[in-house]
Amino acid sequence: MKANLNPLSNTNPKKTVEVLSIGTEILLGNIVNSNSQWIAEELSALGLNHFRQTTIGDNLNRISNLITEISKRSSLLITTGGLGPTPDDLTTEAIAKAFNNKLQEREYIWNDIKKKLNNNSSINENSILKKQCLFPEDALIINNPRGTAPGMIWKPTKEFTVMTFPGVPEELKEMWRESGREYINQNFSDNKIFFSKTLKFAGIGESKIAEEINELLSMRNPTVAPYANIGEVKIRITAKAKNNSEAKRIIQPIKEKIINKFPTFVFGEDRDTLASVIVSELSYRKQSLAFAESCTGGLLSSFITSIPGSSKVFKGSIVAYKNEIKNSILNVPNNLLVTHGAVSKEVAQSMAIGLQKLLKSDWGIAISGIAGPEGGTKEKPIGLVYISIIGPNNKIHNIKKVYNPIRNRIDIQRLSVNECLNSLRLILLSNKD
Amino acid sequence: MKANLNPLSNTNPKKTVEVLSIGTEILLGNIVNSNSQWIAEELSALGLNHFRQTTIGDNLNRISNLITEISKRSSLLITTGGLGPTPDDLTTEAIAKAFNNKLQEREYIWNDIKKKLNNNSSINENSILKKQCLFPEDALIINNPRGTAPGMIWKPTKEFTVMTFPGVPEELKEMWRESGREYINQNFSDNKIFFSKTLKFAGIGESKIAEEINELLSMRNPTVAPYANIGEVKIRITAKAKNNSEAKRIIQPIKEKIINKFPTFVFGEDRDTLASVIVSELSYRKQSLAFAESCTGGLLSSFITSIPGSSKVFKGSIVAYKNEIKNSILNVPNNLLVTHGAVSKEVAQSMAIGLQKLLKSDWGIAISGIAGPEGGTKEKPIGLVYISIIGPNNKIHNIKKVYNPIRNRIDIQRLSVNECLNSLRLILLSNKD
Repeated sequence: MKANLNPLSNTNPKKTVEVLSIGTEILLGNIVNSNSQWIAEELSALGLNHFRQTTIGDNLNRISNLITEISKRSSLLITTGGLGPTPDDLTTEAIAKAFNNKLQEREYIWNDIKKKLNNNSSINENSILKKQCLFPEDALIINNPRGTAPGMIWKPTKEFTVMTFPGVPEELKEMWRESGREYINQNFSDNKIFFSKTLKFAGIGESKIAEEINELLSMRNPTVAPYANIGEVKIRITAKAKNNSEAKRIIQPIKEKIINKFPTFVFGEDRDTLASVIVSELSYRKQSLAFAESCTGGLLSSFITSIPGSSKVFKGSIVAYKNEIKNSILNVPNNLLVTHGAVSKEVAQSMAIGLQKLLKSDWGIAISGIAGPEGGTKEKPIGLVYISIIGPNNKIHNIKKVYNPIRNRIDIQRLSVNECLNSLRLILLSNKD
Repeated sequence: MKANLNPLSNTNPKKTVEVLSIGTEILLGNIVNSNSQWIAEELSALGLNHFRQTTIGDNLNRISNLITEISKRSSLLITTGGLGPTPDDLTTEAIAKAFNNKLQEREYIWNDIKKKLNNNSSINENSILKKQCLFPEDALIINNPRGTAPGMIWKPTKEFTVMTFPGVPEELKEMWRESGREYINQNFSDNKIFFSKTLKFAGIGESKIAEEINELLSMRNPTVAPYANIGEVKIRITAKAKNNSEAKRIIQPIKEKIINKFPTFVFGEDRDTLASVIVSELSYRKQSLAFAESCTGGLLSSFITSIPGSSKVFKGSIVAYKNEIKNSILNVPNNLLVTHGAVSKEVAQSMAIGLQKLLKSDWGIAISGIAGPEGGTKEKPIGLVYISIIGPNNKIHNIKKVYNPIRNRIDIQRLSVNECLNSLRLILLSNKD
């Protein structure tokens, strides 16, 4: 069975939208194309699905041919970039060429540019800036309150509109908000919006989730789509509706259905992280937290301290990387280190107990493991990790994990951090201490 | 005059390259398309100019039609995304459809996937993961050392090759470095190789560097291009040559020229990081390192412990997030905390002294600052950071930084970590203790 992943899209062929980024610097990898993402988000919010984003370099013929190509399959094209004064800024010229149009100078724009650059004596009638006053005769101008380069809204044919914006993100955004968005809303949207809710998962893989909610993946409104990254799985539910509250009503039952299927695996929504939900929960309980880290080497602490407000709950950590520190600071007996080795349940537990005595926190997590690429043995391979969590009632939870040794050092550290945070979350969930 | 932006580029029309990103989440604006930028940089380094980047959603027909379109105008297509196990992962299927090819199961890949997911009892013959073993019969497989989804190199026609990579950046990068790059180099460059040397900078901005080496930026062979990311600036020197040793001969004088212009700012080459050069230098000196972290909350430690072999030099850290820990563990006098505040030269210095007494390391770095978004005052604004570095001769170096408060918490923490590491590097450079 085929999933229909984009069933919400506007299937009226007259209303298809494309986004075109113009700039050799993008093709050379010098900058990330963040404008396309921003426009994509805006278009989604307007309920307009676009089917394609393209990036092309500063070459007159290539841009012009591409515009011709797009005008045959789409009804609206939004371009960014290539509106500046230098010779490699070719967007308006290339669009005109695609439709055999001749550009004409608009005097009021030239006056406007001169005003914007007042006191600048280098502005004469031969200035390269003059190029920014050239437009097709019947184009509407999009005023640029943040710079000298205006954009345009031009309908060279009955079925095709092109809107041009500069590549400078601040200028693009202001012009979009001031004029672009409203024009699109009035002429291209069917008065519906898109709204998404993302559920975050821990302790379960993407394929396992997808298998269990297979029937939801082919829904049409809302759509349900899983995404995965290292140590993070999420499901995005997207509704098309008249407004946000209608969208929320459409999303709610599906969201509940998914949460009910995975009651302990869903840890949050949207911008929640494992660290942020733990900081919130412990803040609410007015309880404190501390770590004793060996193999994660400070990464566990940094995940918590990346969260604003973590200072309310987080006391600090002992990064006990060398055994002498485990012994001298955390009071792990040397005979334990010799008999069981630093990577053992016994040592992790002793680290947790030492930590709690030392930092006097309500919750403590100790972790010891082998992140590689060296230090693995047959009995204790790379990827072996012991976690010990101690709570306010002094009850200790011990966890052993064996990560696949094809994982590299950084991955093993990150997965270990996730395991620590998720284990604490699950203990908190089942425990009202 | 038109800028010659990529003078090394291959202009043979038979060798044109395109990049295609597949994923509805990009069209919805949920993620930035950073993969395209990364690949663009890599292609530039290989001397291959690509003329177009396209993004398309997870729709079988649309992907398939686009592949057909691209195959008619380009000789190499690099795709990212859509190789996962879920129903919206359609890349391989769509490519096969474009050329009326039937996918076949490769048993050894299935065995490999099962091995990678060892101990996972849920993997049976009906698992959706099985999809990841399906390839055209004559496709070469690109092994994925970081995940279950392999890519492929397939030549469906004499004139067209497609290479597929996953959308997970870590997997894409490793597969590219392990196999993809070399294949492209051997098959799509014009009997010349492209060889790059990257110089890494710390403590200086991109524009400052660009101004000072302006005349080098217009060179043709080698080309010299600056890149910047948060807290990281690099210059890539790329030569086109018959072989690596000829390329190195071309690069060497330019490299020396740049290093001589910035003798203290260049800290390393290629995959060096500030953390890795410090681990190397201290290993060589057989000296140890420890940290006392407040505002960076473990991030400084994690930068060092992300480096393989860091256990040779790194003893551990005290993450003294709360003042009570600064006092009880690091022995910072309470009156110092009250009089000067935790974010002060005096407290940072006292933390460094307490750290060295406690962990007995040759080098110690203490850091205290305000990462925000709360906690700033007029006297002590967000972005204020004090660093104190103590060495084997007990000499203390104090550093004060004020980061722009428009920086967010994560940026301030990252910039602070860079400052700690770069300051230690400069002390080590001028100091043979």
